[in-house]
Amino acid sequence: MFGARCLLRALRSCSSVPCPRHKPSTKLSVRDALGAQNVNGERVKVQGWIRSVRSQKEVLFLHVNDGSSLESLQVVADSSFDSRELAFGSSVEVQGQLVKSPSKGQNVELKAEKIEVVGNCDVKAFPLKYKERHPLEYLRQYPHLRCRTNVLGSILRVRSEATAAVHSFFKDSGFVHIHTPVITSNDCEGAGELFQVEPSSKIKVPDENFFSVPAFLTVSGQLHLEVMSGAFTQVFTFGPTFRAENSQTRRHLAEFYMVEAEISFLESLQDLMQVMEGLFKTATRAVLASCQEDVELCHKFIAPGQKDRLEHMLKHNFLVISYTEAVEILKQASENFTFTPEWGADLHTEHEKYLVKHCGDIPVFVINYPLSLKPFYMRDNEDGPRHTVAAVDLLVPGVGELFGGSLREERYHFLEQRLARYLDLRRFGSVPHGGFGMGFERYLQCILGIDNIKDVIPFPRFTHSCLL
Amino acid sequence: MFGARCLLRALRSCSSVPCPRHKPSTKLSVRDALGAQNVNGERVKVQGWIRSVRSQKEVLFLHVNDGSSLESLQVVADSSFDSRELAFGSSVEVQGQLVKSPSKGQNVELKAEKIEVVGNCDVKAFPLKYKERHPLEYLRQYPHLRCRTNVLGSILRVRSEATAAVHSFFKDSGFVHIHTPVITSNDCEGAGELFQVEPSSKIKVPDENFFSVPAFLTVSGQLHLEVMSGAFTQVFTFGPTFRAENSQTRRHLAEFYMVEAEISFLESLQDLMQVMEGLFKTATRAVLASCQEDVELCHKFIAPGQKDRLEHMLKHNFLVISYTEAVEILKQASENFTFTPEWGADLHTEHEKYLVKHCGDIPVFVINYPLSLKPFYMRDNEDGPRHTVAAVDLLVPGVGELFGGSLREERYHFLEQRLARYLDLRRFGSVPHGGFGMGFERYLQCILGIDNIKDVIPFPRFTHSCLL
Repeated sequence: MFGARCLLRALRSCSSVPCPRHKPSTKLSVRDALGAQNVNGERVKVQGWIRSVRSQKEVLFLHVNDGSSLESLQVVADSSFDSRELAFGSSVEVQGQLVKSPSKGQNVELKAEKIEVVGNCDVKAFPLKYKERHPLEYLRQYPHLRCRTNVLGSILRVRSEATAAVHSFFKDSGFVHIHTPVITSNDCEGAGELFQVEPSSKIKVPDENFFSVPAFLTVSGQLHLEVMSGAFTQVFTFGPTFRAENSQTRRHLAEFYMVEAEISFLESLQDLMQVMEGLFKTATRAVLASCQEDVELCHKFIAPGQKDRLEHMLKHNFLVISYTEAVEILKQASENFTFTPEWGADLHTEHEKYLVKHCGDIPVFVINYPLSLKPFYMRDNEDGPRHTVAAVDLLVPGVGELFGGSLREERYHFLEQRLARYLDLRRFGSVPHGGFGMGFERYLQCILGIDNIKDVIPFPRFTHSCLL
Repeated sequence: MFGARCLLRALRSCSSVPCPRHKPSTKLSVRDALGAQNVNGERVKVQGWIRSVRSQKEVLFLHVNDGSSLESLQVVADSSFDSRELAFGSSVEVQGQLVKSPSKGQNVELKAEKIEVVGNCDVKAFPLKYKERHPLEYLRQYPHLRCRTNVLGSILRVRSEATAAVHSFFKDSGFVHIHTPVITSNDCEGAGELFQVEPSSKIKVPDENFFSVPAFLTVSGQLHLEVMSGAFTQVFTFGPTFRAENSQTRRHLAEFYMVEAEISFLESLQDLMQVMEGLFKTATRAVLASCQEDVELCHKFIAPGQKDRLEHMLKHNFLVISYTEAVEILKQASENFTFTPEWGADLHTEHEKYLVKHCGDIPVFVINYPLSLKPFYMRDNEDGPRHTVAAVDLLVPGVGELFGGSLREERYHFLEQRLARYLDLRRFGSVPHGGFGMGFERYLQCILGIDNIKDVIPFPRFTHSCLL
């Protein structure tokens, strides 16, 4: 009916051996082929890209990878199959028998009966070179091809599993998932510079807004989650957020992902910290269970020692210190900080890293920050004379701040003094509540030990760069 | 340490009966309380918002809802608890004994020993009125409060479960999840008008782009998925997409969600349709299993008859007709269409609805559209003289087009003739592949029978409207 199937059959085949007519082969992913138990010559069909070719006198070895796993499937073929077209990067379809492998490197291998080259690859023009380990900086130039390397393949499979693990954690804990909007007329906490949005035809007529008001890309879903926590009690969102910051550091992206949660009737920061620690540990254990070899690749080649550091984090209860204690620790440190630690001043990355080290490389919650440092919606601790709010940051080894959260000010008269905007949400059955946000790329950097944030997101966006 | 807990305790309590000191109450969600088996006076604490108050001579009945389920928990209290503050919309914390309910409406009820009003609600100012069923149009004015009604609560719980079900379907089928970017320098298929993005400070200096090139909000993740399917074989994305269309119909939003999938080594439209039908049926069955009462509420009050229509869809194999057959059916119809059906012309919503009716209200795939109607990247069927491409749309009752997909043109020389842009993706191990997109709001409209797209998304964005 479509012609597509017939056309595919007509594609050039390298096979010169006539294929005996058995029952049709089962199509298998490389992952499923590798995981097959007690194989005994079952006829299968595997499709993927050639990762290596080794031609011996009588035998041809291919490694075929389809991205379903880090490991490739070894294909063993008669040397009569050899052809210049069976090159690194080409796509192939291999039919044959799945058998126990006599050699050590793998459990099973595929004895080829038929090999079709589905798409050629001009190895000279192909920016990825056979057997070379390309630096991550080099690969960043090729956002459309780098996913075909071992290391980016592993990172993006981990990202996919971590995404699923985050959803599962919240679902299992009774949270309702909310798609908070990307376009918003709200500029939230004035966090850095915003991206503004207008139809491309109107961008030069700024006095006439598409949405009647100026509209921006969201910097946080918090306000919208607060709305929803007033109906569903426990809610979360997991979506893109945006900052128009003019920075090209290894820590910043213009578009990045945040996991945010909001919980009503929350009575203390301890309850909030329990959810944060639970999310980190549950998601990480799920990733380690489902992507073991992918995580190990990163730990082995990119971040030696990270495996032990991660186990150390998972094994211990996270620590809790107050901001005031943190400043005392920093003041007593023998280290020469660029920014002198002082009560009332923000903690810088250098301080955060020192604090984590000081805590024995265990993630540490820093709580109760000065009121003057934090946005208006955080809950007043009514202490003094060093006036603080019920805010919490989680600092982790290698990354610094991973989560930020707080109890929110639910008391109408407290907010009234500070701000009018937020008030309508507190008029109708207000409840104590709190929430947090976790930078998802930072989380991936933390568990994998990846230094540059651009390597843990499929298509990084930052100043002067929006490839594809 | 925080003061928050003590403050909460200090909140006004309506209780005049001294609470006997037993072991501390277990905190339960309303859903868990309602689902408790063999209850026998267990001490529990439940928090939520009052949905109804009924005061009798000696007894006070409250219904408390926390958004964890459609059903509320009945609280039975001594009339001494009665207070003006126990009003519709107020938030409360109730402690007491969970017991078997003597009345018919529910299995369990909570015998209150202590009731605290956590946050008052000024019922006169509150736009939601006790016992009134507010029209959906009325509720749209209050995006921050409508989630507290039964119907929006149900719709958004269904949306949350459907989101989880979509992720599960793909994960279970071996797809890798990809976060395709929201900001892109690519204008894809030129689908409608685009939103352009610039830092708010630069929006008036259009000759100086933040990303060095003009950047837009994505209209589809397809290109980025095609990149990734060249490494992972089976990939999907589920994120926001944008159209700057100046329309205020019940069918259009400026920001909406798409589920998109891309599959390498795909050999026919049949294989693609199998994934589409699998996604629709698997996700819908999961939603029906986990949100039965929420779905039923919509079917009962908003879309009578929808329950049977949905069962009818799930029971039957979806049908397949060609575009050419579809045009023939339309030409033979006795119906007076606004747009005369003709080979080579687009199908309009009126045509789509007629076709679904004609097919007995079973979802129908329409395949092989005229080449001239579809974008350049769809696979040429090389038929003639009526030249078609391997495109497929799924039409469903009530909504019309729900999915659109195609085999993609993988043959370098075919594309070369048509377009230069796409070529680099086809140079290195090109493979036959295809994919589809499903409008997630339309999916929710289809299963729930909701007429207006603005009612199935938490915060709708459209021309002249960007509330919150």
